[in-house]
Amino acid sequence: MPGISKKGLQMPASPIRKLVPYAEEAKKRGTHVIHLNIGQPDIKTPKIALEAVRNHTIEVLAYSMTEGSEQYREKIAAYYSKNSINVSSKDIIVTTGGSEALSFVMGTIMDSEDEIIIPEPFYANYNGFATASGVNVVPIASSIESNFALPPIADFEKLITTKTKAILICNPGNPTGYLYSKEEIKQLANLVKKHNLFLVADEVYREFTYEGREHYSILQEPGLEEHAIVVDSVSKRYSMCGARIGCLVSKNRDVIQTAMKFAQARLSPPTFAQIASEAALETPQRYFDDVIKEYVERRNILVSELQKLEGVKIAIPQGAFYCVVELPVSNSDDFAQWLLEKFEVNGNTVMVAPAAGFYATKGLGENQIRIAYVLEKEQLVKAVQILGEALKKYRDK
Amino acid sequence: MPGISKKGLQMPASPIRKLVPYAEEAKKRGTHVIHLNIGQPDIKTPKIALEAVRNHTIEVLAYSMTEGSEQYREKIAAYYSKNSINVSSKDIIVTTGGSEALSFVMGTIMDSEDEIIIPEPFYANYNGFATASGVNVVPIASSIESNFALPPIADFEKLITTKTKAILICNPGNPTGYLYSKEEIKQLANLVKKHNLFLVADEVYREFTYEGREHYSILQEPGLEEHAIVVDSVSKRYSMCGARIGCLVSKNRDVIQTAMKFAQARLSPPTFAQIASEAALETPQRYFDDVIKEYVERRNILVSELQKLEGVKIAIPQGAFYCVVELPVSNSDDFAQWLLEKFEVNGNTVMVAPAAGFYATKGLGENQIRIAYVLEKEQLVKAVQILGEALKKYRDK
Ligand SMILES: Cc1ncc(COP(=O)(O)O)c(C=O)c1O
Ligand SMILES: Cc1ncc(COP(=O)(O)O)c(C=O)c1O
Repeated sequence: MPGISKKGLQMPASPIRKLVPYAEEAKKRGTHVIHLNIGQPDIKTPKIALEAVRNHTIEVLAYSMTEGSEQYREKIAAYYSKNSINVSSKDIIVTTGGSEALSFVMGTIMDSEDEIIIPEPFYANYNGFATASGVNVVPIASSIESNFALPPIADFEKLITTKTKAILICNPGNPTGYLYSKEEIKQLANLVKKHNLFLVADEVYREFTYEGREHYSILQEPGLEEHAIVVDSVSKRYSMCGARIGCLVSKNRDVIQTAMKFAQARLSPPTFAQIASEAALETPQRYFDDVIKEYVERRNILVSELQKLEGVKIAIPQGAFYCVVELPVSNSDDFAQWLLEKFEVNGNTVMVAPAAGFYATKGLGENQIRIAYVLEKEQLVKAVQILGEALKKYRDK
Repeated sequence: MPGISKKGLQMPASPIRKLVPYAEEAKKRGTHVIHLNIGQPDIKTPKIALEAVRNHTIEVLAYSMTEGSEQYREKIAAYYSKNSINVSSKDIIVTTGGSEALSFVMGTIMDSEDEIIIPEPFYANYNGFATASGVNVVPIASSIESNFALPPIADFEKLITTKTKAILICNPGNPTGYLYSKEEIKQLANLVKKHNLFLVADEVYREFTYEGREHYSILQEPGLEEHAIVVDSVSKRYSMCGARIGCLVSKNRDVIQTAMKFAQARLSPPTFAQIASEAALETPQRYFDDVIKEYVERRNILVSELQKLEGVKIAIPQGAFYCVVELPVSNSDDFAQWLLEKFEVNGNTVMVAPAAGFYATKGLGENQIRIAYVLEKEQLVKAVQILGEALKKYRDK
C-alpha cells in the first residue's frame, strides 16, 4: 500500500478535533453542550447579501475572473478607502476565504524551509498553511500578563535568520483579542524595513474593536507599501462564513502578479458567494452598530462573569470575539475532555478550546483555554457558571 | 524590497495568458474574436440547480462541514453507484472545485522533490499545483499519431525512480479528448500495484464520451482500492464552473484522513455552491442526453470541417470537448498571436490555445493547438473557415 507524504503526517489536526467525539458522546447521553469553542458567529447575515443571491438571474454559471470581478474589486477598494486605507482594485485579488489568501501568501513569498515569525498564541490554521507550503513557523511568545501585546522588538531580532522571509500578525487577534496599537505597528514596520522582510497582517476581524479603539491597518503605514500584505475576509464581518470569500491586498506589484499565478491555477473564486459579498458591501451602518453593540455587551458580561471565578486570569479582549483565559488547572486539554466526558450541571456542560493548540512552542498555554463569545448573553452567563462549578469539582477530584 | 519566492517565479502562467492582451487589442480595433481557446461551456446550467439557490432560506450563512454536508456526500455516493462505482459518503471529500481536490492530492501523497508521472499533453494547471506543492512533474509523451493513447507501460517503467509517488491521468483527456480503454486502465493498475504507487485519475469529463464508448473509472478496477484517487467536479458536468465544487474520492482511509487535514485548514467548501450542486444531482436524464447530443454534433462538425484543411492532422476526440490539432506551422504560439494581431476575415478572427503549454517537454507540441468545442455549430464552422484562410495567408507571408 503506497504511503502518504511526510507533509501529510505533519499536517496538524484542528486543536479541538480530539474533543469532537467526546462532545458527540455527551450529546448522545442527552447532555446539552454549550459551545464556547467555535468562531462561527450566530449573528444574522445581512439580508441584502442573502437576497442578492435569491434574486440572481444566472443562466450559465460560468467561471468568474480569476482575481474576482472588476466591479466587486472596485467596491472593495472603495470600502477600504472609507476605512482610510488607500488601495485600488488592481491591488486586490479576491480569494476563496481568507484561508485561500493565506495559502497564496505563503506560496508567493516563501519557499520550502523558509521561516515566518508569528507571535503566539496564533490562529491554529497558520500551521496548516505553513506545513502545506513546506514553510517553518518560528513562534515568538506573547504573554497573558500583558494582554498578549506585541513582544519586544529585540526578541524578534534574535529570531531573524537568513531564512526569515516574513512576520505574520493577526490584528485584532484570534485567539488573543489583542488589538495592536499604531505604535506597535510602527515598530514592526521599522523592523521589516530594516531586515527587508514582508509584514503580513490578517485583518479579518478589523471591524470588531471595542471601547472606541481604532484599528490601524498595516496598509495605512506610510513607506510600508512594498512590505505590507493584508489578508481579509467577509466571513466574520458580515457573518458570512459559508460564502468563502476573502481577499489578498498589497501594493507590491510582484506580490500581486505572483499571487495571481497561484490564483490562475485554481481558476476562480465562487460566483454566488461573490454576488453575496458584493451586495454585503451595501449593508447599512446600523447593522454594524448593532453587531458591535452586541459583541461589546457579550464581552463585558463574559469578562465580568469570568472575573468572579477564583484563580482565573483573563486577557481582556479589545477586538475580535475571542478571549484567552488562564485556569487553575495544569492541563486544559484534560480539563476540556473531562468537561465533556464526566461533568454536567442539570444536564448541561460546556465545550472549550484548549489553548495549547494555538501555541507552537510545546508546553505553552497548557493552563489556558480560548472562549469565543459568539453566543447570546444568557448562554454566556450560564456557560461561565458551569465552568465555575466544573473548576471546583475538577480540583477536588 | 523583499523578494518573492523561487516557487512563485517558477509558477507557470496560463498558456493563453500571453495572448490575452492581443485579443483585447483586436477587440479594440473592432475585430470579432471567436474563442476556441477556453473550456468554459456555453451550455445552460440545469434550472433545478439555479433555482435551488434562488429558493435558499439561509439566515446565518455558516461554515458547512469541512468534508461537505453528509446529505450531499450521500447523494454523490448514490450518483457514483448509478455509474457502477461503488463508494460511500465517507470516501468522499467535497472540495472547492476539482482544482482544490488536485491540490489536496498533491499535498497528501507527495513531499517536496517527489515525482508524479503524467502523460503529456496534459491540463496545464497540473504544473501549477505541482509547483505550489514543490512536486516535480515527470512527463511521458503520448502522440497525436495514436490519438494520444496511453504510452507503452515499458516507457513508464523507465521513468519510475525512488522519488516516484504517483501516476496522474486525465480521463477523458483535456486537451487530448482521449478516452482510456478498460484495457489501458488495467495496465496502469498493474503498474501502480507492482511499484506501489498511487494512481490519480482526473475524471471531471466522465460524462462526455462519444460513439457509445463507456467510461471506465479507476474506482471500478478491482484490487485498486488502496491506490486509486479520483478527482471530480461539477464544473463541466452541469455547466456550473462558477460554483466551485468538486470532490476527492478514495477508498484508501489514510488518503482521506490526511486530505481531511488539508481540508480542515481551509475550513469548508462554499455553501451556496453546495446547494446548487446537490440540486444538480436531480437533473433529469434528458438534460444530459441533449447536452451529449449537442457535443457530438459539434465534435462531428468540427472534425469534418478541420479535415477539409490541407496539412492539418487531428486527434479525433472520444470524450471531453477538446481537440488537439496539428497545423502546418512551425510555431503555433507565433501563429496564434498573428491571428489576433495581423489577421481577419470580414472583421472576424479566432483565438486558439497553442498546445506547447500543455506539454512539459520543451519542443513538443509546437505545431499543435487545442480547440475547445464549446461554441454553437455555426460558430465552429465559421471559426474553422477563418482558420483555413489564415493558414494559407500565414504560409505565404
Ligand atoms: C484569524 C483568522 N484568519 C483567517 C480565518 C479564515 O477565515 P475564512 O477562510 O473563513 O475567511 C479565520 C477564521 O476563523 C481566522 O480566525
Ligand atoms: C482536466 C481538468 N481538471 C480539472 C479542472 C478544474 O476544474 P474545476 O476546478 O472547475 O473543477 C479542469 C478545468 O478546466 C480540467 O479541464
